[in-house]
Amino acid sequence: MENKMNRKISLASRPAGVPTLDNFEIADAEMPQPQAGEILIRTLYLSVDPYMRGRMNDRKSYIPPFALNEVITGGVVGEVVESRADAFQPGDIVTGQLGWQLYSVAQAAAIRKVDPALAPVTTALGVLGMPGLTAYFGLLDIGQPVAGETVVVSGAAGAVGTLVCQIARIKGCRVVAIAGSDEKNRYLTNELGVDAVVNYKTSTDLNAALREACPGGVDVYFDNVGGDISDGVTVLIRHGARIVICGQISLYNLEEQDVGLRVQPYLLVNSALMRGFIVTDYAARSAEGIGQLGQWLAEGRVKYAENIVEGFENTPQAFLGLFSGENLGKQLVKVAD
Amino acid sequence: MENKMNRKISLASRPAGVPTLDNFEIADAEMPQPQAGEILIRTLYLSVDPYMRGRMNDRKSYIPPFALNEVITGGVVGEVVESRADAFQPGDIVTGQLGWQLYSVAQAAAIRKVDPALAPVTTALGVLGMPGLTAYFGLLDIGQPVAGETVVVSGAAGAVGTLVCQIARIKGCRVVAIAGSDEKNRYLTNELGVDAVVNYKTSTDLNAALREACPGGVDVYFDNVGGDISDGVTVLIRHGARIVICGQISLYNLEEQDVGLRVQPYLLVNSALMRGFIVTDYAARSAEGIGQLGQWLAEGRVKYAENIVEGFENTPQAFLGLFSGENLGKQLVKVAD
Repeated sequence: MENKMNRKISLASRPAGVPTLDNFEIADAEMPQPQAGEILIRTLYLSVDPYMRGRMNDRKSYIPPFALNEVITGGVVGEVVESRADAFQPGDIVTGQLGWQLYSVAQAAAIRKVDPALAPVTTALGVLGMPGLTAYFGLLDIGQPVAGETVVVSGAAGAVGTLVCQIARIKGCRVVAIAGSDEKNRYLTNELGVDAVVNYKTSTDLNAALREACPGGVDVYFDNVGGDISDGVTVLIRHGARIVICGQISLYNLEEQDVGLRVQPYLLVNSALMRGFIVTDYAARSAEGIGQLGQWLAEGRVKYAENIVEGFENTPQAFLGLFSGENLGKQLVKVAD
Repeated sequence: MENKMNRKISLASRPAGVPTLDNFEIADAEMPQPQAGEILIRTLYLSVDPYMRGRMNDRKSYIPPFALNEVITGGVVGEVVESRADAFQPGDIVTGQLGWQLYSVAQAAAIRKVDPALAPVTTALGVLGMPGLTAYFGLLDIGQPVAGETVVVSGAAGAVGTLVCQIARIKGCRVVAIAGSDEKNRYLTNELGVDAVVNYKTSTDLNAALREACPGGVDVYFDNVGGDISDGVTVLIRHGARIVICGQISLYNLEEQDVGLRVQPYLLVNSALMRGFIVTDYAARSAEGIGQLGQWLAEGRVKYAENIVEGFENTPQAFLGLFSGENLGKQLVKVAD
């Protein structure tokens, strides 16, 4: 084995409010050695995702907080360098929840192979990975869209949002996309075929813009952002509406508990449902989701966008960009070829 | 037919905030005459219900607003005086959505018979009527309580709340009841067997009292009241919790849109559900609900409480009492023997 050097990115301090580069430390690290049943993986692509912000707080949630001064874990696509497990060979492309580091060691059971012949390997972190399954199960299982209904998607230009818009279109729905730039909205309209767009950053009266985009009200709201945008959508729901709570990125950096519109009266008079979910709730059905998404992808019925930053050292900056809305589609970091 | 006089209570003006007696007008009215297929009914008991407050606003909701200067409609138990429909005979006891008036005329299809041999006729407006079905379907269909889980009920001493507490106990749950007086809480504890009580009016720290009453968190929250009480419960929900939005009585008299805790982040991290419902959503299953409630009543497994005000003229006052929490159990007005 050639002489290699590992590097890792740790959480140096817990962010107060909006994270900064100071919250992260990049440092040389020991080269991990695989034990029996383990695999050494060279990182090719790292995924940065909004949900990771929650793990930077020292607060009970659905997954434990990141430990201080430990490597940050997240989705990775990598290449097997050394295998001490029968199922993997050097050269295999794999994905798993590994670390923000150049090299990781993982148990064989914690990773799965990616077939580069089926689709570009980065899709394992996007449309054929966690964001794809999030969009698929969140929209179809909770949102239950019916042809002809109006589906509103916030964070529509993000990794999950772009897929929700397209799946809703496949299901025959009228899709209203909310995003934060005209460039994103042009993409959503021209490339993904959504029926109406709202730019929440430039609308002088967001509530009026939402009303105008949804003249018949809202049947399904797929919410990635929360906050004022969601308040504006909630008042437009129709009888039997379903609100899918997938993310609340507008609130992740708040230091105090937020207050806003009370949704209960709207849910009550409309017999409406609001449900939070986490993609791991659907782990047992991931093959179903990946299978259907892969088929739509092969048929050209689903497109995906990626925003790829080059260079391991730029990972924290790429993560921070999620909160200023820099990414159109899946935000990735390319670490190696 | 003897010479009778009708009287009716109309909505004289729409309440701004908390309703007052001035919003109602009591006046003599014409004696209605049944046409073919119709029945003349003498009112015995009137039901006053919190949801009626919503109909006093001129605002779109799940049922149309009350019209100004028209008789207020609501649940009634009455006696058939004259029938021009085959299915009903004078002397039959019936129930339906009739009016705040001494005599009503109804289509045969709009009323149903009540069997006085099965249970006191007032139960048709309570445990074996709309409040019973509300408790039954809201708790079981949306709340889906599982034995051993913690079920929290707000407005626990009301017509719906008392039944929710008991059905949750029948299902083997730990029941935490929130009500506004020690007398109510003694009833809930000693008569209905709830496991813990919180007095929201006298608790110096409501959130702490709720935490103490729910040391393991909350699996099901049956919400009749909304507002700060609900905020205190929401922060205690567990993974997979179900929040049933049945009523929001604390908000009904507000003149401006209320703000409060944003629930979305709590639903998200707990994969939790919040759902509004209206009992008429379950109209097709009402026989199932009444059947089960009637069986529990006959077996002594469900008790009911009634707060009966005497005299037709006191109907508006009885209605107003709902908002100051005067009633333990179902609030009724006795109009005639």
